[in-house]
Amino acid sequence: MSRLNEKEPIRNTFKAPLYNMIFTRYFLRVFLIALFCTSASVVYSEDGYRLWMRYDKITTVAVAKKYQSLATSVLLEKESATFVIAQKELQLALQGLLQTTIPVTKTIQPGAIVLGTASSSSIISSLGISEKLKALGKEGFVIFSVVIKNKPCTVIAANHDIGVLYGTFHFIRLLQTQQSIEKLSVVSKPAIGHRLLNHWDNLDRTVERGYAGFSLWDWHKLPDYIDPRYIAYARANASIGINGTVLTNVNANAQVLTVPYLKKVAALANVFRPYGIKVYLTARFSAPVEIGGLTTADPLDSAVQAWWKKKVDEIYTYIPDFGGFLVKANSEGQPGPQNYDRNHADGANVLAKALAPHNGIVMWRAFVYSNEVPEDRAKQAYNEFKPLDGTFEKNVLVQVKNGPIDFQPREPFHPLFGAMPKTPLMMEFQLTQEYLGFATHLVYLAPLFKECLDADTYAKGKGSTVSRVIDGSLENHTLTGIAGVANIGNDRNWTGHPFAQANWYALGRLAWNPSLSSETIAEEWIRATFSNNENVVSTLKNVMLASREVTVRYMTPLGLHHIMGWNHHYGPGPWIKDKPRADWTSVYYHQADSLGIGFNRTATGSKALLQYTPEVQKIYSTPADCPEEYLLWFNHVGWNHRMKSGRTLWDELCHHYYAGADSVQWIQQQWDSIHNHIDEERYQQVKALLAIQYQEAIWWRNACVLYFQTFSKRDIPTGLPKPDQSLDYYQSLEFPFAPGIKPKW
Amino acid sequence: MSRLNEKEPIRNTFKAPLYNMIFTRYFLRVFLIALFCTSASVVYSEDGYRLWMRYDKITTVAVAKKYQSLATSVLLEKESATFVIAQKELQLALQGLLQTTIPVTKTIQPGAIVLGTASSSSIISSLGISEKLKALGKEGFVIFSVVIKNKPCTVIAANHDIGVLYGTFHFIRLLQTQQSIEKLSVVSKPAIGHRLLNHWDNLDRTVERGYAGFSLWDWHKLPDYIDPRYIAYARANASIGINGTVLTNVNANAQVLTVPYLKKVAALANVFRPYGIKVYLTARFSAPVEIGGLTTADPLDSAVQAWWKKKVDEIYTYIPDFGGFLVKANSEGQPGPQNYDRNHADGANVLAKALAPHNGIVMWRAFVYSNEVPEDRAKQAYNEFKPLDGTFEKNVLVQVKNGPIDFQPREPFHPLFGAMPKTPLMMEFQLTQEYLGFATHLVYLAPLFKECLDADTYAKGKGSTVSRVIDGSLENHTLTGIAGVANIGNDRNWTGHPFAQANWYALGRLAWNPSLSSETIAEEWIRATFSNNENVVSTLKNVMLASREVTVRYMTPLGLHHIMGWNHHYGPGPWIKDKPRADWTSVYYHQADSLGIGFNRTATGSKALLQYTPEVQKIYSTPADCPEEYLLWFNHVGWNHRMKSGRTLWDELCHHYYAGADSVQWIQQQWDSIHNHIDEERYQQVKALLAIQYQEAIWWRNACVLYFQTFSKRDIPTGLPKPDQSLDYYQSLEFPFAPGIKPKW
Repeated sequence: MSRLNEKEPIRNTFKAPLYNMIFTRYFLRVFLIALFCTSASVVYSEDGYRLWMRYDKITTVAVAKKYQSLATSVLLEKESATFVIAQKELQLALQGLLQTTIPVTKTIQPGAIVLGTASSSSIISSLGISEKLKALGKEGFVIFSVVIKNKPCTVIAANHDIGVLYGTFHFIRLLQTQQSIEKLSVVSKPAIGHRLLNHWDNLDRTVERGYAGFSLWDWHKLPDYIDPRYIAYARANASIGINGTVLTNVNANAQVLTVPYLKKVAALANVFRPYGIKVYLTARFSAPVEIGGLTTADPLDSAVQAWWKKKVDEIYTYIPDFGGFLVKANSEGQPGPQNYDRNHADGANVLAKALAPHNGIVMWRAFVYSNEVPEDRAKQAYNEFKPLDGTFEKNVLVQVKNGPIDFQPREPFHPLFGAMPKTPLMMEFQLTQEYLGFATHLVYLAPLFKECLDADTYAKGKGSTVSRVIDGSLENHTLTGIAGVANIGNDRNWTGHPFAQANWYALGRLAWNPSLSSETIAEEWIRATFSNNENVVSTLKNVMLASREVTVRYMTPLGLHHIMGWNHHYGPGPWIKDKPRADWTSVYYHQADSLGIGFNRTATGSKALLQYTPEVQKIYSTPADCPEEYLLWFNHVGWNHRMKSGRTLWDELCHHYYAGADSVQWIQQQWDSIHNHIDEERYQQVKALLAIQYQEAIWWRNACVLYFQTFSKRDIPTGLPKPDQSLDYYQSLEFPFAPGIKPKW
Repeated sequence: MSRLNEKEPIRNTFKAPLYNMIFTRYFLRVFLIALFCTSASVVYSEDGYRLWMRYDKITTVAVAKKYQSLATSVLLEKESATFVIAQKELQLALQGLLQTTIPVTKTIQPGAIVLGTASSSSIISSLGISEKLKALGKEGFVIFSVVIKNKPCTVIAANHDIGVLYGTFHFIRLLQTQQSIEKLSVVSKPAIGHRLLNHWDNLDRTVERGYAGFSLWDWHKLPDYIDPRYIAYARANASIGINGTVLTNVNANAQVLTVPYLKKVAALANVFRPYGIKVYLTARFSAPVEIGGLTTADPLDSAVQAWWKKKVDEIYTYIPDFGGFLVKANSEGQPGPQNYDRNHADGANVLAKALAPHNGIVMWRAFVYSNEVPEDRAKQAYNEFKPLDGTFEKNVLVQVKNGPIDFQPREPFHPLFGAMPKTPLMMEFQLTQEYLGFATHLVYLAPLFKECLDADTYAKGKGSTVSRVIDGSLENHTLTGIAGVANIGNDRNWTGHPFAQANWYALGRLAWNPSLSSETIAEEWIRATFSNNENVVSTLKNVMLASREVTVRYMTPLGLHHIMGWNHHYGPGPWIKDKPRADWTSVYYHQADSLGIGFNRTATGSKALLQYTPEVQKIYSTPADCPEEYLLWFNHVGWNHRMKSGRTLWDELCHHYYAGADSVQWIQQQWDSIHNHIDEERYQQVKALLAIQYQEAIWWRNACVLYFQTFSKRDIPTGLPKPDQSLDYYQSLEFPFAPGIKPKW
């Protein structure tokens, strides 16, 4: 447990020999590898920078041969910034995958790939596909095989340039995953309009809840210095259909709205524009006071309204396609309309009116709660926002986290989904693993996202899934959105953990098409990122698909939640109590006592469950019926409660914790089993990270079991090994420099 | 001037059209390049990660052919961690430079490169070179061409493994710079024993005065996760002979001395060890109180002495070859022995006594000054330390900055050099460009280092150079050292500015051999880092050798100093006054008034000049005789003072500022002239950085000339363009998020 105690422990329990042995072995390997890896031109170093856009040579000769005959040239009749990106990307991909340099032509050759829109290409306009194109909207595309002038071609067509780029990346993905491109007939358009990353990046380049280094945005050198990484970032996002990025932290600094920073933002917007990506900023609600010189930020004050209008007009002089604002207001100390006795709609609408003439939008976060309200935190967003349904301007999206607390390893879907029919709701997922092991645990999040998207709200009867709320189809909203809180930093591999790249990838793919399965997305990503070897694909797919459930088990099984370390959220802290607000403690959430454990949110408890439709209520309302993965979320349950396994709750809880930790060992074994198929640098990186994950899984298991045992007064079931440290030891651990801590301002 | 104002300016003077034009042009280039650069395996991206260890193919056929015949195999009789590094580095270099994989053998082949020590190699021990080896000490090496058993070979031999590694890197440098390896006879050993980097890195990964991203040390993931970058760092340092690294900031945090952090430090030490690099830490003087639970840190208190002894013993259980401590005490708010009415020797000695049994050393900084002392800050270190000469323990080095103020673009050498004959003094240079344009100005620092090293203290008559103080030869000290405050961060190219790599390189090379010329070092670096093309070499050499003087001119000509922006030190701030301490203001240093400008440090002024030997005093004591580059450092001079050029001081000052800024344009032209010979990524990076440098040179020039004009009441000389902004404008600029600001603790 060598990493666990960042402050001098009460008792020093360092096991030097074991640690040294493990370290030495690991060290020797890394050291020998690195000798050969640090000189890029000599021996290729797989440092993860390329993400899923690895275009390494296809070694299956038959596949490569087939592709070679079907991808001989790019036909582009008219150039545009976006078209040229598509063309060059295609050339780059084929140069890598097939080791062939294909020419750009203006006439058709057999095997040509024809890129364009009806208006840019006479060939495409002559194909009689105008009806087909009509249905694609602004961003959709078609890819189809066709014979033109007796020459077999592949056409990638769209209504707008960006659609062609998306189609190109789709086509390249087919090659990377070694699918047939012979008789293509792909029609694709995004289900959701705004597909965004939310960066919680501060202007000093620290990243709140960031575990992959520091902010990509080098504000000091902007606008004059354009880091090549900005372009790589845009390209990666475009490849998975992400079309917007909120550059700054929701705990916002008004400074970013001043002219010098707007120039810097404009420089980034210029880089991102041809990739179809708009920039957004977080608006600090008190900006009119802080940088505007006003004495109030009251949204109904005419001077405030005028100030926002002028400020927004000014922003658009620098960034003509500025996307709009994301706002966290009256939450965790952020200023907001309630400071002036106004409501959230008043706050959102003053910004929305300023943005509307420019087609900008407001994303107003529903993540609000107050410790002055003596109410279950899980209920507060619903209580505040539901009454406001129908009072928001048309260009406002209310951005709702997937669950009612805060990105826990497992939460039920947020009760606001389905509850505000007149208001477009936007989904906020978290990619950065604030509560899921930071960047050292392998946790594939698509199953978590899907669990929420596929959940049925029953708002308009069976089939009213969260997905249908978000994509607008349930209530006929055309303004739609989904956001992922980014897990990206300036680590060379972007996300710290090589597998965390998959979560960025999954967000993009699901935002485009929420009906994709976690498995499909994992398979695409594995093939593009690691290997098309079938053993690798199936092994990693199994690992990835299991990983989130494994993490739930060693952290928060059976519906437990919010029992992590104080403030930094690193490691277990079920004992956290006596903090400035009750709903920042752990004891508030697990409610363990001598009788049992869990938060009674049913009609006999906090009544949070009553915020859901009756159909949903029915599922969770009794310990007997409640699905066990949500048991302690909704119910306070006796230690002797009999579980489906036949075990008591206490025994089951222990078994979950132990099974979770054991499963990490299984993941380690799986990883080792494909060693031969993985490049050495990433193999060693992941191996070291899995060792940390295992260590920390044991830490979670031991700390939680020992702590809850003080209430249950029961033994750890026979057959399960006793923790080798005491509860005191775990409670003594301190981590003053854990990364990603909320800055103080 | 788009980057200059980070807060809303008083008047918005943004020139949008010009800016946009420039940006668009730059953007398009970068954008097209990046398309081809981001996929490493497909098209090679020169991102600077390889530093000067680029082993790209030698394209001059004759040279490559010659090398091929003289480097056919590596002969290594016995393995060790360090030998294997040398062997593999050689193989790596040859694989790149010659595209040849050379075998490792145990028998001699023609063209063999024989690596080893007399004790590891029977071949080397049979060559009759034991006398030769004796003179090499622990780290020296010989490289010579020899015929063994009728086979021409090259021998790289030393007394210890690390010498063989140093020799190997020297040999590789010969190949990289395309020198003959035919009749080699190299004997080399370092002039200075401790050749260190000082990292001002905090445990939260911020870097004080760091402009190249954040700290390399990922404390959170240590010790379990070894970033491949740690190995690349060790390799780079070994290649230039750096043999120690102080991991933590001199504004120290005692936490790093606790067991959990010692384990992390040990992991780094394990990585660095085979590269001949020891780790050092900064010791916070109040650690016995902060982490030791004592009520005092009085160095004469026996409990304090016992605590340090125990702590040091503990450190050595984790790091058996721990180097020792660097200490900043009683300076800028840091605790120290004076808090207990003890002196610096008392403070240093308590640590030294604890370290001595383990052969550890103390580097005690002489950078002290107090605003409670009504005395010229330039005098204070001398006043405090000179009386202590002879009272330090044998394993203490007093670490002295090159000049008496603080790393200014130009300072005279520190008066302590030569003034403490009984105490070994260590040099502290600054690589990070705190006062020299951060990481956006191209400033090659070797000429600054050399100016100091070559300065004559006259301590023991003519020829008593600073260099001879530092290398121990002047007073027969065997404990010697030189340190560079690192300019390294987690930017992919390590130092932010590609040319800042040269300053890291120069520190290592000069520490090994202070008699090397700036020109020689520049040429080596250019050839290894950019190209052996003669036009590139001569052009870049001219630029690099001129660059420091250019910067002095547009920042602090004629002996001006310490007139930069407040706190962050970004840009000009000659108007800074009324701060908590006078010696943190600019007006204290330039002393401009209606009569003239400059700090009178002669016998009629602060008398700081009297701290030097009479010979040195003579050089600087009158405005008439004083070399003009130090004029205003030592003298207050009238505005009408006639300069050697025939101009008045005021006119000369203006001409210097204008010439400095104009020279940046010359650098830009030089860079453009070799465009064809530079890889596109670095070409564009440097081009963008030079544009920033030019912008900021104009800023310095205008702000300083306008400000000093308020005293001189004279016109800017005819022919020089008037500043296009007012003094008010420059004074209104604010940069709340300038990087590298001193943390508050």
